[in-house]
Amino acid sequence: MNDKITQLLNQDPLILQALREDISSEDVTTNAILRSACPGQAELICKQDGVIAGLPVFVRTFYLLDPNTEITCFCKDGDTVQKGQKLAVLKGDMRVLLTGERTALNYLQRMSGIATYTRKTAALLEGTNIKLLDTRKTTPNMRIFEKYAVRIGGGYNHRYNLSDGILIKDNHIGAAGGVAKAIALAKEYAPFVRKIEVEVENLDMVREAVEAGADIIMLDNMTVEQMKEAVALIDGRAETECSGNVTKENISSIAAAGVDYVSSGALTHSAPILDLSLKNMHAL
Amino acid sequence: MNDKITQLLNQDPLILQALREDISSEDVTTNAILRSACPGQAELICKQDGVIAGLPVFVRTFYLLDPNTEITCFCKDGDTVQKGQKLAVLKGDMRVLLTGERTALNYLQRMSGIATYTRKTAALLEGTNIKLLDTRKTTPNMRIFEKYAVRIGGGYNHRYNLSDGILIKDNHIGAAGGVAKAIALAKEYAPFVRKIEVEVENLDMVREAVEAGADIIMLDNMTVEQMKEAVALIDGRAETECSGNVTKENISSIAAAGVDYVSSGALTHSAPILDLSLKNMHAL
Amino acid sequence: MNDKITQLLNQDPLILQALREDISSEDVTTNAILRSACPGQAELICKQDGVIAGLPVFVRTFYLLDPNTEITCFCKDGDTVQKGQKLAVLKGDMRVLLTGERTALNYLQRMSGIATYTRKTAALLEGTNIKLLDTRKTTPNMRIFEKYAVRIGGGYNHRYNLSDGILIKDNHIGAAGGVAKAIALAKEYAPFVRKIEVEVENLDMVREAVEAGADIIMLDNMTVEQMKEAVALIDGRAETECSGNVTKENISSIAAAGVDYVSSGALTHSAPILDLSLKNMHAL
Amino acid sequence: MNDKITQLLNQDPLILQALREDISSEDVTTNAILRSACPGQAELICKQDGVIAGLPVFVRTFYLLDPNTEITCFCKDGDTVQKGQKLAVLKGDMRVLLTGERTALNYLQRMSGIATYTRKTAALLEGTNIKLLDTRKTTPNMRIFEKYAVRIGGGYNHRYNLSDGILIKDNHIGAAGGVAKAIALAKEYAPFVRKIEVEVENLDMVREAVEAGADIIMLDNMTVEQMKEAVALIDGRAETECSGNVTKENISSIAAAGVDYVSSGALTHSAPILDLSLKNMHAL
Amino acid sequence: MNDKITQLLNQDPLILQALREDISSEDVTTNAILRSACPGQAELICKQDGVIAGLPVFVRTFYLLDPNTEITCFCKDGDTVQKGQKLAVLKGDMRVLLTGERTALNYLQRMSGIATYTRKTAALLEGTNIKLLDTRKTTPNMRIFEKYAVRIGGGYNHRYNLSDGILIKDNHIGAAGGVAKAIALAKEYAPFVRKIEVEVENLDMVREAVEAGADIIMLDNMTVEQMKEAVALIDGRAETECSGNVTKENISSIAAAGVDYVSSGALTHSAPILDLSLKNMHAL
Amino acid sequence: MNDKITQLLNQDPLILQALREDISSEDVTTNAILRSACPGQAELICKQDGVIAGLPVFVRTFYLLDPNTEITCFCKDGDTVQKGQKLAVLKGDMRVLLTGERTALNYLQRMSGIATYTRKTAALLEGTNIKLLDTRKTTPNMRIFEKYAVRIGGGYNHRYNLSDGILIKDNHIGAAGGVAKAIALAKEYAPFVRKIEVEVENLDMVREAVEAGADIIMLDNMTVEQMKEAVALIDGRAETECSGNVTKENISSIAAAGVDYVSSGALTHSAPILDLSLKNMHAL
Repeated sequence: MNDKITQLLNQDPLILQALREDISSEDVTTNAILRSACPGQAELICKQDGVIAGLPVFVRTFYLLDPNTEITCFCKDGDTVQKGQKLAVLKGDMRVLLTGERTALNYLQRMSGIATYTRKTAALLEGTNIKLLDTRKTTPNMRIFEKYAVRIGGGYNHRYNLSDGILIKDNHIGAAGGVAKAIALAKEYAPFVRKIEVEVENLDMVREAVEAGADIIMLDNMTVEQMKEAVALIDGRAETECSGNVTKENISSIAAAGVDYVSSGALTHSAPILDLSLKNMHAL
Repeated sequence: MNDKITQLLNQDPLILQALREDISSEDVTTNAILRSACPGQAELICKQDGVIAGLPVFVRTFYLLDPNTEITCFCKDGDTVQKGQKLAVLKGDMRVLLTGERTALNYLQRMSGIATYTRKTAALLEGTNIKLLDTRKTTPNMRIFEKYAVRIGGGYNHRYNLSDGILIKDNHIGAAGGVAKAIALAKEYAPFVRKIEVEVENLDMVREAVEAGADIIMLDNMTVEQMKEAVALIDGRAETECSGNVTKENISSIAAAGVDYVSSGALTHSAPILDLSLKNMHAL
Repeated sequence: MNDKITQLLNQDPLILQALREDISSEDVTTNAILRSACPGQAELICKQDGVIAGLPVFVRTFYLLDPNTEITCFCKDGDTVQKGQKLAVLKGDMRVLLTGERTALNYLQRMSGIATYTRKTAALLEGTNIKLLDTRKTTPNMRIFEKYAVRIGGGYNHRYNLSDGILIKDNHIGAAGGVAKAIALAKEYAPFVRKIEVEVENLDMVREAVEAGADIIMLDNMTVEQMKEAVALIDGRAETECSGNVTKENISSIAAAGVDYVSSGALTHSAPILDLSLKNMHAL
Repeated sequence: MNDKITQLLNQDPLILQALREDISSEDVTTNAILRSACPGQAELICKQDGVIAGLPVFVRTFYLLDPNTEITCFCKDGDTVQKGQKLAVLKGDMRVLLTGERTALNYLQRMSGIATYTRKTAALLEGTNIKLLDTRKTTPNMRIFEKYAVRIGGGYNHRYNLSDGILIKDNHIGAAGGVAKAIALAKEYAPFVRKIEVEVENLDMVREAVEAGADIIMLDNMTVEQMKEAVALIDGRAETECSGNVTKENISSIAAAGVDYVSSGALTHSAPILDLSLKNMHAL
Repeated sequence: MNDKITQLLNQDPLILQALREDISSEDVTTNAILRSACPGQAELICKQDGVIAGLPVFVRTFYLLDPNTEITCFCKDGDTVQKGQKLAVLKGDMRVLLTGERTALNYLQRMSGIATYTRKTAALLEGTNIKLLDTRKTTPNMRIFEKYAVRIGGGYNHRYNLSDGILIKDNHIGAAGGVAKAIALAKEYAPFVRKIEVEVENLDMVREAVEAGADIIMLDNMTVEQMKEAVALIDGRAETECSGNVTKENISSIAAAGVDYVSSGALTHSAPILDLSLKNMHAL
Repeated sequence: MNDKITQLLNQDPLILQALREDISSEDVTTNAILRSACPGQAELICKQDGVIAGLPVFVRTFYLLDPNTEITCFCKDGDTVQKGQKLAVLKGDMRVLLTGERTALNYLQRMSGIATYTRKTAALLEGTNIKLLDTRKTTPNMRIFEKYAVRIGGGYNHRYNLSDGILIKDNHIGAAGGVAKAIALAKEYAPFVRKIEVEVENLDMVREAVEAGADIIMLDNMTVEQMKEAVALIDGRAETECSGNVTKENISSIAAAGVDYVSSGALTHSAPILDLSLKNMHAL
């Protein structure tokens, strides 16, 4: 999601919107004091250990304000960074640096926070074959950035949104009149390129789902023991996902369940930011 | 920021954008299984103790999808809520409840998380006259929601964006050639309805700022001792704000400094969400 | 794609845009002659045998112009209609009927043309288990309407766009350095809810794809004999799709190949419209 | 409509919208396999005889994705092209070529289809003074492209939309209380730079229209004999247009009627596409 | 331009944009003081004699903010109004009245100013057959409102924009290589529903234009004597328009020239507003 | 408001919208006659004495249409210009010059008209310490341009909109139950960076406002004598603003009142344009 086309079509409009959120008429302070262009420079400094993610978004924010801004990065997305580390040098009109600073950092800090949290969480699954997934519990109008940050942190992406994945939940099952019926309706309706995922709560549902041809079975709020049984019952006929209040704190205990995937909303909804700042800004 | 006009002009477009982020063509699963309208109901349940904020946004999300959705709330923004508490009942087309659930919760969880964090932080200033302020360190395209949540949590809002407040930072001072010169430029340029705030790092700058007529003086990264001296020097001639890496953990120690305001970016950038969910959804 | 939510979020903006394309300032003729509201009625008449599709879009176009317009439909999407048949009666302000007529019909005629062409094409596959698929060869900014019309005509939808399906084409294979390598890259990168489809041109590629775990194998521009061999080789380990210049004229000959799906761009790019018109408009 | 200003103001937004329709988050396949820029080339090949139209739109689609894409065209809009002919060579990032291919071709194929159909239809009027006109029966949100294609095919444009031309139809006449009254109302209301066109169905209406000062008289669904009489009656006092279900198949018979213009909705609503494709794509 | 469809499609988006220009986050004052809905009323009072225009826009502004606002108008667009006259009573939420007041008045005052100026100017042409025309010298993004106000004031509309009228100016003539050549190019290119207007500066050009078949001849910056000669030369073969720095002050002298139309940019670019205000606002 | 960032974020979208208002499909005349690029030049000539404002907007309009347009300005915003003076030379594609001319001039003429009117009005306050302020009585969707023009003319800006300034009016006071209560509510609610301005009508209100801590007191529709008393009573404890039907004609008489600011809506709502035009356009 970090290629130039995605950036152009689906990130730039959001970045410009964020800039307009911060500058509804003008940057009064900067315009009061710097009345004409003034070349300057600043450094992007890391103030906390973590994983950096979102440098292209950071760079793009300044670029959109002024394509003459030159930013040299000394690291790349996914790199481990340390408190005090100089991550980049920015050169350009001081007014651009001052006005763009907050929006650029708001993106970078949040994305790096997610990557850092994801990296730590994924580390707890090391040595297993379990992959860590994100969810749709993202901040509104931030999904394209947050799902990318998860990937940078070593996680994998679940479906992007309601339009590109089938996930049959308990209420769908209730409305359909049973697991098998719900799966049949989905197979009949959904584009054939979709896998069918079903959320189940007990072994009976697991059995019905696997027999009805579900591609992925999400084990929702089950105990580790229940999950083990479910995995045994499924026996490779479908992929398995463990879901439900998974956090950095409890994920290790799940590893024993033998599922293929564990999904965690906390990756995107509760990661604190990674503290970063522009320092040593000065005119040239 | 929670009146109907702000909602209509400045929140609805963002909510609709978030819905389109989640539904780029259709909700495939729901459309596969519920092929026509089906009246149903669900409950909004709190899964964690905290402060609720964003109920009007939650309600509005469903209303925008279908104005026939009826939501009865049993609490209001700012109320303390407890794990297990039923906060609202939703009645409407099951398809609307299923499709809108995630976006509505993404707003409500994040806003309530911020209100909860703010309430806890503000409590640490109780017994003092210090007011807790937010910053511009908000999630891009979420500011209108996040600043409102801070207020609900008992915090106060700093400037909304670069256009509606003057805040002269060190780089502005450098460019102007000194504190007094910067203040003079701002007074000459800025709309006369603006107060002039200046960020200072030492007592010399404090003195210069107060003599040049600054309305607010931001004491940046000073020790408590330095802040006390600054407050004494200012002696009521300007308001004072303490800023710089203030969190729930360290804010108590600042109380002694005697400033008027303490601002904390953590309120909006590092509050974890408040866990909430739709439960007991069923057809009627 | 015909539910109220999809309509609201993803069709209404396009319909309004089409109305503005036709009314850049005002409907000069109607405003010159009907200077105030004037209740009237008109009939939607079919002028050609076919399959109707898009009635909700037709109705919505007038509704968006004036929610007081009342339209009674005597048939529903998917029905076979005949020359001379009265499909609906419209009652409302004559100015609304006159101004909205062309845009509403432009949608309905095109969607019905696609449904009619699809129905005829699908009929040629009757008695086989082969399903007829559309492609991304849709008219720009019409996909949500055209893919729906295919479904109404009895076809099935291939992926909606580049973001919700994996389809590895020859150039991707070339860039990856082979079929198996391309599949491995896709499995590693793509959201796990995606099936992997690969386009192949000969039996060696078929073998490599099926062994690398492709979920769907697209047989591109193969002869019927080649396809039979491919299907035998795959032996149920993947689904099969026949693609390449499939039209109403040649589709019958493909039926013998034994594939699961046949995709045809002609469904959306070359179906002529179904002729429909508003008749007997008069004041009430 | 093919100048740079029209392109910038009124085509680019539609092209970008079409790209976003096809890429709602990212091109998953291309991003999975081509993880960095990779220079490549491809050829635009004609697969059917016809008239090419829309090359600037084709070029612009890739340019909007990446201004570094170089496209050398070996023909220009309006040229006759033949099956197998190489029309252009594209050089650029393979990812841009792969991602932009479908949208660029969707425009070019449809526009060339219209130009081809128009050219063939116009040829049937050769040797007469009759000019071939399009209508407003265009695909929603495609008018700027489709009307241009008609012109390239040798047709002429009727009014662009409801705002830039007066066309008094039978319902307007009914509402006004007669042909003469309708014309008087239009002359009084409409900007004086507009010609007044009236749709008539019989000779009495023709007489009334020409006497009331109509500039153009549209003979709707008349026989050739009736049209001859009408033209004689009008005797040069107004221009004449023949309208009503005109297609390639029946247009020759109309030539004898002696009208100035013949309009045909089929030019834009029922022309099949011209088959074109990108071939020989490979890395450089 | 005052019908509901034009309002919906082409005025509402501009009105909402103007409201967002005035309310970029919230109406801070009103929200500080009126913390919940409070029914109230106000009167629209005229503070200057003139012609009222824009009441539907005034009403719509409040309606868009809150459809429950009730506005009773005691006059209608085009009416003469007098200082002190009560024009309307508004009832609704005080917060809506307070927040919408300025934007609603900004439209109404400007439109009424234009109507008033136009009425006065048109009166100077009374007794002649000359019609008064506006120009494209309108305020950016206000054209739909300003051209309507001219009509309400008794003026007529020239072309709406560059897309719906042909007006060949001296530079076009220069580029074409002469008046006749320019007219021929326009006739060949432009939709046949357009009249051809040509701007001329002397009698030779008049002669060439009329012989080449111009429909309208604009006499630019000619003396009254020259215009008389031109009108005699044209002798009814084309319509005539006098243009060039026409104002209320000098228009009478032009009446003698015998032209069909006089156009004046001053109608829209230099009319002062009509002073209006909301008075007697109070809670109910 | 004239820096590149404000231009990019908050002016360009409005300029492009104005261009689309004038070119809804294409510039028919120019496209009919200049069928390919044709280098040319023109001069911007002043036709009236005044103050120029908006040159960067004028330049930007052409730049947005074609970045290759070269415009050399011989003066800058704020300069006094005289009838006949050549202000700039434009070089570029004749089609761009012809198509952009009207929109560019519509901005420049209006902005220069405001600057000219403001300069004349401000001159009447010379020798006093009174500053001249604008109001929110601007043309809808023109505020960013009009407030800038006021500044160029030597005026100062009052609040930009309802979101960035507190101004408590009589109806707010009524709703709050008194001046002091209203001020208290505002202080409690509003971001602390806001000054509190209160509109008062008599000396009692003045007294109450100043004692309640108002920062600015607006004396509304008072006589000069009343204002003198109010200023004496306030005695430097708040700033003072005189408001209410202030125009060029009556402003001198107010000077004696001793207020700090005088605000005048006429600056933006009733200034006639400054007449400017493109002349001597010719091919190169």
